[in-house]
Amino acid sequence: MKFSELVEKLSLAYGQPLFAETGTDPEITAVAAIDQAFPGSLSYIDGGKFASRIKTTTASALILPKDPDWQAQATAQGMAWVEAPYPRLLFAQAIALFYQPYKPTPAIHPTAVIDPAAEIGQDVAIGAHVVIQAGAKIGNQVCIHPNVVVYPEALVGDRTTLHANCVIHERARVGADCVIHAGAVVGSEGFGFVPIPTGWYKMEQSGYVVLEDGVEIGCNSTIDRPAVGETRIARNTKLDNMVHIGHGCEIGQDCAIAAQTGMAGGVKVGNRVLIGGQVGIANQAVVGDGAQIAAQAGVHGDVKPGTGVAGSPAVAHPIYLKSSAIYARLPELYHLVKQIQKQLGLPTN
Amino acid sequence: MKFSELVEKLSLAYGQPLFAETGTDPEITAVAAIDQAFPGSLSYIDGGKFASRIKTTTASALILPKDPDWQAQATAQGMAWVEAPYPRLLFAQAIALFYQPYKPTPAIHPTAVIDPAAEIGQDVAIGAHVVIQAGAKIGNQVCIHPNVVVYPEALVGDRTTLHANCVIHERARVGADCVIHAGAVVGSEGFGFVPIPTGWYKMEQSGYVVLEDGVEIGCNSTIDRPAVGETRIARNTKLDNMVHIGHGCEIGQDCAIAAQTGMAGGVKVGNRVLIGGQVGIANQAVVGDGAQIAAQAGVHGDVKPGTGVAGSPAVAHPIYLKSSAIYARLPELYHLVKQIQKQLGLPTN
Amino acid sequence: MKFSELVEKLSLAYGQPLFAETGTDPEITAVAAIDQAFPGSLSYIDGGKFASRIKTTTASALILPKDPDWQAQATAQGMAWVEAPYPRLLFAQAIALFYQPYKPTPAIHPTAVIDPAAEIGQDVAIGAHVVIQAGAKIGNQVCIHPNVVVYPEALVGDRTTLHANCVIHERARVGADCVIHAGAVVGSEGFGFVPIPTGWYKMEQSGYVVLEDGVEIGCNSTIDRPAVGETRIARNTKLDNMVHIGHGCEIGQDCAIAAQTGMAGGVKVGNRVLIGGQVGIANQAVVGDGAQIAAQAGVHGDVKPGTGVAGSPAVAHPIYLKSSAIYARLPELYHLVKQIQKQLGLPTN
Repeated sequence: MKFSELVEKLSLAYGQPLFAETGTDPEITAVAAIDQAFPGSLSYIDGGKFASRIKTTTASALILPKDPDWQAQATAQGMAWVEAPYPRLLFAQAIALFYQPYKPTPAIHPTAVIDPAAEIGQDVAIGAHVVIQAGAKIGNQVCIHPNVVVYPEALVGDRTTLHANCVIHERARVGADCVIHAGAVVGSEGFGFVPIPTGWYKMEQSGYVVLEDGVEIGCNSTIDRPAVGETRIARNTKLDNMVHIGHGCEIGQDCAIAAQTGMAGGVKVGNRVLIGGQVGIANQAVVGDGAQIAAQAGVHGDVKPGTGVAGSPAVAHPIYLKSSAIYARLPELYHLVKQIQKQLGLPTN
Repeated sequence: MKFSELVEKLSLAYGQPLFAETGTDPEITAVAAIDQAFPGSLSYIDGGKFASRIKTTTASALILPKDPDWQAQATAQGMAWVEAPYPRLLFAQAIALFYQPYKPTPAIHPTAVIDPAAEIGQDVAIGAHVVIQAGAKIGNQVCIHPNVVVYPEALVGDRTTLHANCVIHERARVGADCVIHAGAVVGSEGFGFVPIPTGWYKMEQSGYVVLEDGVEIGCNSTIDRPAVGETRIARNTKLDNMVHIGHGCEIGQDCAIAAQTGMAGGVKVGNRVLIGGQVGIANQAVVGDGAQIAAQAGVHGDVKPGTGVAGSPAVAHPIYLKSSAIYARLPELYHLVKQIQKQLGLPTN
Repeated sequence: MKFSELVEKLSLAYGQPLFAETGTDPEITAVAAIDQAFPGSLSYIDGGKFASRIKTTTASALILPKDPDWQAQATAQGMAWVEAPYPRLLFAQAIALFYQPYKPTPAIHPTAVIDPAAEIGQDVAIGAHVVIQAGAKIGNQVCIHPNVVVYPEALVGDRTTLHANCVIHERARVGADCVIHAGAVVGSEGFGFVPIPTGWYKMEQSGYVVLEDGVEIGCNSTIDRPAVGETRIARNTKLDNMVHIGHGCEIGQDCAIAAQTGMAGGVKVGNRVLIGGQVGIANQAVVGDGAQIAAQAGVHGDVKPGTGVAGSPAVAHPIYLKSSAIYARLPELYHLVKQIQKQLGLPTN
């Protein structure tokens, strides 16, 4: 479509008229990252890191922040551009104009095995070889891809998508508008073994998992149910791939948790918490609202609301930055101290 | 059931008469964690951390350790209680009185594809779309949930449970009374590539995996087979979710290995070893009986029997506690040394 | 077979005549690791660590490097031996003489669900309950094990193997001679959410994943596609189990990436890079050709070609070795500095 038409549609999506420099009103046929852009494509600049690309890209149009210099550069390069306070958000909205994600037509594949005692909503898509067991309830417009297994008494809310080969365990309650990605396991047994003289006594995991509306669970992630009570992930929280949530955790809403992070049992995480990749959080730790945990951190105690922590064991982020910078100079520091020790005539051992 | 009846059943389970204060002999209908307990529920107090809850819980009954103060408090609150040396163990036994885990009725689903050259035991439950290939042997009372794949020549011992979408590779020998959780892969090819001038030469992995009786493998965990010989996990060892065991490892009995821990090739782990989450253990490392490895540790060398290690690279646990406490004070330490250096007139660079 | 015959076959595999000491020309029936060898088996010694085993092994024959002492010891023990510059490589070739990996006969199982709009090559093996969706193209001699799901428009190149329960997402392009291990997910949605006042705006992931020829993806690994453009893994790169590759990463050829390593979005990795287990690489980091990243490292910035890094945050490997050694002596260092401070009469706080 013409750039001017695209700007109209984006203004609609953004919810306000967008300021644009139409230039030659080029035909836009695709969206592309700035380092992969090509004639006919729309790209975006979000911050300084890639701004130098404005002068070299062959994109036909750009989404730019309110930056007169960058806008002037784009104009000088003969590019059309549109201004947005949050260019990345507008770019996401542009992608949605050019791309329709794959969604199967509502239908139940004849090879799906659905227990007569399961309830299935309206307009559902249930793929080949899906298994839905007794007492499970599947909402309206749910999309279940092939080879998914839904154990007994599990609930799946309206418009939720279950990708191929994921597993929803007994009694799990998956909300509406959730996405469970391929290979994820929701509601599996918590790791509960009590030491006894002859080894381990298995504590039955009688609880269940609750995913509230709008939750996403990444590929091959695992959400365990507890011995009693529930494991809960609140509204709109997003988990990346291979995240492990232990039994009895309570995670607030609007959190984002990056790949390969793991939480032991009974962890409490507030709302709007950002957690990097490969973070570990120990039993019963409490993370306050709006906290930020850097990748690979190891959290043992509590993290105060709105604070950032990093490192293992985790410390306040500013301290981590300083301490880790000094870590690389420890040999120098050690040598210097030994020199001082010698100069002062202190005993060495 | 009445509290007094419950105590009788628990005494039977525990193997000795339990001392109890029956109070009003309340009707007990459920088990609950202390922070989620409600009237009609039985809960437990294991240690000091939650003891203050005795005064505020609405549980009708408690399992308590032999602590006169806590027992008096419970009595004063009008609660029934039962004493146990290990309250968490008794609580686990109480759960088993109130909860029956889901177990499918023995039957072979007509959509299961079982090779004529596979051997299937008595009273097995084989779910929809399970695939069992030639030469595999499935013991008696085995329960195989839907969409599991058993490769050729694999063995699955009596009473073992294979959860949905797990994979048992060729020649793997899964013992009796094991549980393989959803999405786990047992007996996959070890990561064996020999560098050659043109890239990598694939070393065929002709070995196999042995899981002895009573082993549990968590969701999406992977147990690799070696090029030659075996990878072995001994009796009653329990693995949490997303644990990776490399080719040729030998893990002793009664170990517990928390989520997202990984072992490279040829690691030897003794008996009754406790390993925290996200631990990494390097090639050929040896971990002695009864050792304890803290979460996120990186183990390169050997860990002596009965010792605890932490950190990456791992050091003795007491040293780790001290060193990691000082880590947060490195900026202060650095500044101080620089100050001393200056005061002494030592050359700076 | 006789040892002399084995040497002939190995010479053929190795591409040059191999120097051997045939001794009594024993019958060789198996290959075994040196610590598990037995009469009739061929084993190998690659380096000093296991050389002491030459005097105690009951192997009938050994592959040895060009080391006159070890060769003399083997001869003195009455063992046959063959010399190889790279004993481990020759051992790999020996395994291939004794072991034929399981490979199903080409055939399409009647329970496989193949969309009429999918293209299937010649001589393919497609197992039970496999699902192949519209527009997918499967090359010649491809082997797809049971319960695999191939989403629409995905391509799978000639001679590639897809192990049980793996998932190939829409538009993914898997090359020829690849191996995708059990439970792996290729081409899943990147973790793309843009923060907005009401939570998260989902950025559609319109891109795709490219695996070039000869790539291996370990069990339960996940390779995400980007919002726009591609995620690419180049020729002959090998990934171990549970590796996470974020959206838009570009990984060079002939790399080896050990288990549980994760890369965030847009990471660039050169050719012949070696990455240990549980490594984390942050957004947009660049790793040069031939770099080596030690296990559990946390890489934030760029890694120069040919260098080695370790630690989190990662530093040059020699520095890491020194700093981590001093880490364990931090308490001592701290105590010493405090003592100096006191002696010099510096103020303490």
